Amino acid sequence: MTTLPHPSDIDLLGLTLDPDRRHGRFELVAPLVRPDGALYGGTAIAASVVAMEAATARPALWVTTQFVASARIGDVLECTTDVLAMGGRIAQVQVTGRCGDQVVFMSLGSTADPREGGMEGQYQTMPAVGPPEDADDTPFGPPHSHDAPGFTARVEYREAAALDQEEPTAPVLLWARLTGGLAATPAGIGFLADMVPAAIFRAAGMLRDGTQPMGATSLDNSLRFGRVPSDQEWLLLEMRGHMAAGGSAHGSVFVWTPDGLLVAVGGQSAKMVQARRAVATPMDGPGAS
Amino acid sequence: MTTLPHPSDIDLLGLTLDPDRRHGRFELVAPLVRPDGALYGGTAIAASVVAMEAATARPALWVTTQFVASARIGDVLECTTDVLAMGGRIAQVQVTGRCGDQVVFMSLGSTADPREGGMEGQYQTMPAVGPPEDADDTPFGPPHSHDAPGFTARVEYREAAALDQEEPTAPVLLWARLTGGLAATPAGIGFLADMVPAAIFRAAGMLRDGTQPMGATSLDNSLRFGRVPSDQEWLLLEMRGHMAAGGSAHGSVFVWTPDGLLVAVGGQSAKMVQARRAVATPMDGPGAS
Repeated sequence: MTTLPHPSDIDLLGLTLDPDRRHGRFELVAPLVRPDGALYGGTAIAASVVAMEAATARPALWVTTQFVASARIGDVLECTTDVLAMGGRIAQVQVTGRCGDQVVFMSLGSTADPREGGMEGQYQTMPAVGPPEDADDTPFGPPHSHDAPGFTARVEYREAAALDQEEPTAPVLLWARLTGGLAATPAGIGFLADMVPAAIFRAAGMLRDGTQPMGATSLDNSLRFGRVPSDQEWLLLEMRGHMAAGGSAHGSVFVWTPDGLLVAVGGQSAKMVQARRAVATPMDGPGAS
Repeated sequence: MTTLPHPSDIDLLGLTLDPDRRHGRFELVAPLVRPDGALYGGTAIAASVVAMEAATARPALWVTTQFVASARIGDVLECTTDVLAMGGRIAQVQVTGRCGDQVVFMSLGSTADPREGGMEGQYQTMPAVGPPEDADDTPFGPPHSHDAPGFTARVEYREAAALDQEEPTAPVLLWARLTGGLAATPAGIGFLADMVPAAIFRAAGMLRDGTQPMGATSLDNSLRFGRVPSDQEWLLLEMRGHMAAGGSAHGSVFVWTPDGLLVAVGGQSAKMVQARRAVATPMDGPGAS
């Protein structure tokens, strides 16, 4: 029986839960923010997953986190979980994250106990890529660092080498893991996979000349989870940009284990920032518009 | 300047809006329910889009609708819209649909005014298919009918003929339109595209022998909109099942104009029903678990 929420997720966020398991809070310490000190989007979706799992004692099935306002390093985020429906196996949940009176993020999602003998299957295959050991650091975004402030102290990304011939609109392929040997959980996948705007830049060709891309502000992040093994460290993020219109863009992500198990699929929308700004990165984080 | 909400969407739902444009209501008449008389999921996501557009006077950019409880033909659904953040161009919005005191659905999403000269692009191409005029009725789901109760009085689906060679995990390709010559709007796309569980059945091979598939209960529906032309009738739904685990499954949809413009991308999660039931269909609708 898996303990929910996962103790490693509680540690990642520094989350304190009340005895009712429907209220909790955590401080935005350095490894939970972007390099510029603002809330990292992956933190908000990870906290939402943990809150949902804590309130229902069931593993996350899907979650959509909407980024409403920003918050800064040092702020304390209060999470309130409302269980909208508690079915025999599936629960429907809402999580609200506040800083004082300000709603910072709001999430909807389901948690679900797997049904014995329930439908199982996977209907697509992983891209052929080289292993993480052979992969290089990514050419975009803040570098992995234990020294600089920011979530990159807790995560590591390496660009995977595609072994197939390149498609005209090849996906961005990143190996990703939490640092400190933490195994990936649904919350951990949320923390790692808030990277879809990078794929939009790639799809639009903005990284091909090696220049620093323009920035993006994620509006939301949505993830749907399959079976997530408890012993996986490296995960492959296969990310695609779909389209952009009027300065907003949409993309998606498939999350794979090295063995080719599809553990999550997701999508994100983002406001694409056109002026170059010193701190803007394609992996950015949330913020109101 | 486009009038928002679109008058045709108001007509489709029979929605009445209060002067504050943040409260509205509509009755679940026959064309808004499933053949069994329960709320159709596409109705809930369409109503959410209209409510978001009405409250902000901006077109929908993305929406996630969570199906919390069912409702029946004859019920009146009250929609309350909370504008969580109103940026200069993008708004973050929540919509709650209630029947009496019961929350029936809850939605999060953004609306956005396009920015002049903002990022534009499309990074994938439409599947090669034959036109809707040459397409056959779908082999699954309730038949198109003006007589039987249900949303199929307002929509028409035809299976598109793939012109490429078939992939091992070919997507479900459906031409879809609203009846009565209505043009597709974001809300109309929501009404049409609540069909992803059908692709999960297809991916899992359950329809290959021609038998009636087992049922599914959608847990949510999420759509992200590009530029939606105001004069399109037929749309191609390209739907894929990704994976299933423990009786829950996930899939996605791309929505194309006949000319190959990608107007929406989306995802759905569903509870897959294993026992055969008289009224269950893969396109079903929402319900708590």
